[in-house]
Amino acid sequence: MPFAFVQHLKNKRIILASGSPRRREILSRLGLNFDIVPSKFPETLDKAKYAPSEYAIANATEKGLEVYGRLAQEDQEVDIVIAADTIVSIDDDILEKPKDAEDALRMLKRLSGRSHRVYTGVAFIYSLREPIHPGYNIVSFTEETEVMFRECNEDDLKVYIETGEPMDKAGAYGYQAFGSFFVEKINGCYYNVVGLPIKVFIELEKLVKKQEFNCVTKDLQNNY
Amino acid sequence: MPFAFVQHLKNKRIILASGSPRRREILSRLGLNFDIVPSKFPETLDKAKYAPSEYAIANATEKGLEVYGRLAQEDQEVDIVIAADTIVSIDDDILEKPKDAEDALRMLKRLSGRSHRVYTGVAFIYSLREPIHPGYNIVSFTEETEVMFRECNEDDLKVYIETGEPMDKAGAYGYQAFGSFFVEKINGCYYNVVGLPIKVFIELEKLVKKQEFNCVTKDLQNNY
Repeated sequence: MPFAFVQHLKNKRIILASGSPRRREILSRLGLNFDIVPSKFPETLDKAKYAPSEYAIANATEKGLEVYGRLAQEDQEVDIVIAADTIVSIDDDILEKPKDAEDALRMLKRLSGRSHRVYTGVAFIYSLREPIHPGYNIVSFTEETEVMFRECNEDDLKVYIETGEPMDKAGAYGYQAFGSFFVEKINGCYYNVVGLPIKVFIELEKLVKKQEFNCVTKDLQNNY
Repeated sequence: MPFAFVQHLKNKRIILASGSPRRREILSRLGLNFDIVPSKFPETLDKAKYAPSEYAIANATEKGLEVYGRLAQEDQEVDIVIAADTIVSIDDDILEKPKDAEDALRMLKRLSGRSHRVYTGVAFIYSLREPIHPGYNIVSFTEETEVMFRECNEDDLKVYIETGEPMDKAGAYGYQAFGSFFVEKINGCYYNVVGLPIKVFIELEKLVKKQEFNCVTKDLQNNY
């Protein structure tokens, strides 16, 4: 039997707007059922206009709205779309996925022996119980984790880049796999570094208790 | 191609003295080859005599020595035995695996809304290049991670205990699975909480560079 809020979401259509297998694994771990519809939002926002955490939230929101809008156009029923964007920030610069092996090496050398911050922005786009225009609401939040890198030997970094692991990861490393060798410690939520913070469940639980959210019948809500 | 120190350990007989699937997964992630020989050490040390981190190291050392001695008696060739012990410490008390569901609930309620410390003690028992009595040496170390729990709802804790997950875990939770729902943040090495810190690789790398260690030919050592 899952946690109460997971049970309340049982027969609802939840969409994860991300193709990341890591996000899928995290979101499914408490027994939540959902479909995957990766966002087609091109991530073209101007980084210079945002603080790093705001940039991650803005990207997540755009990704979620793109998927919500697309499914609405297809007349699909959707209760909630969950979208996320993870970035690495160092010296107020934003590091996303590396362009190529050279870019990955540059990023990793920059992270070596120092601490940086990982932000995941998360956005929920959820349908309202009462159909007030535009019929949905947005909840967004961010989680920050500090990550301390060891001093890295360049040969080891090159071996690491050859594994291919850095290429689809913000900041060019994965703490959940080989990249863990370079990380001395973290301060914050581990899952945030992997791509989806545990806070996503805490916020889903709050949402389940909201009157405006169409996911919960009055009956369930009174018993909650 | 693995990291240099992993290559240097390639044809050596490494033993993990633990049956924990989590430790096996962590130790194998950099491509290290090893055999598993779970320790039969009964963990009967008197907790009152040790500080929590020392208790974890003492247990790890006893586990490693038991396996090293057993294999030596069987005339098996062994280059290094790696043993570990993970405990949870709160208010200077040591929490190990819960005895039953009631014990698990008591532990989890005690952790709720507060921070505690997780210590993993690790011991390497390794054969010496020169056969000086007793033929082996011991390197041991500990890693500490602070874990902050959210305020937990007793119903959720009961649901969690029903999953069975707490029963084989120090402190009655697993941050790598369902138990992550209760953890707000950590400060330190994530893998230490799971059962084997990344420091194990850093210390193995140091060991490979030691002259007394029989794992490395002089030739390799000069090139390292």
